Amino acid sequence: MECFHRVPERMAFAVSKMRKTNLVDTASLFCDVYGLEPGQSQAGHRHAVGDKLYYVVTGTGRIRVDADERDVLPGDLVCAPAGSDHAVHNPGPERLALLVVMAPKPA
Amino acid sequence: MECFHRVPERMAFAVSKMRKTNLVDTASLFCDVYGLEPGQSQAGHRHAVGDKLYYVVTGTGRIRVDADERDVLPGDLVCAPAGSDHAVHNPGPERLALLVVMAPKPA
Repeated sequence: MECFHRVPERMAFAVSKMRKTNLVDTASLFCDVYGLEPGQSQAGHRHAVGDKLYYVVTGTGRIRVDADERDVLPGDLVCAPAGSDHAVHNPGPERLALLVVMAPKPA
Repeated sequence: MECFHRVPERMAFAVSKMRKTNLVDTASLFCDVYGLEPGQSQAGHRHAVGDKLYYVVTGTGRIRVDADERDVLPGDLVCAPAGSDHAVHNPGPERLALLVVMAPKPA
């Protein structure tokens, strides 16, 4: 397993949809970096058992956890606990990059 | 549970030793921010079952995972998988702040 990663060098974006790049994948957790071009979203969804963390690396966005939707900026950390309905949107104008951790992993 | 956190506002440091501030604590994982003044360290240690992630928020440091020790800077992500011997040091001159996630949590 590669243990050291430079996140800014691994961020990727695609015009077609939000891009997920996996950095770490163990039996207990995964860590991805999500790249969202302006206007892209991750639609609302739930994980029955996984708790998810989002950390804003660059850009600004909107993150919703159940009924609580807020503007987020670099340095913000958001927890979407297991069972919560959560969604992400990048209203622009910058690209949005998020570090995303989930544990335990989806079955 | 508070789901939204501004990490720069939660970083804390202490002259006596490395300071851990908990941000998220669920059944499956925790997320802390560690603050290390120049010269401070987290000594080498292992977790039998927990995988740990370090993400450098600010400052520069040295992180070791088993025999692999490297300089780290903001934007670097390090995984110390379960069973690995891992350590952190801040050689300075800046304060070092790390976002730290572990899953599963220690017993």
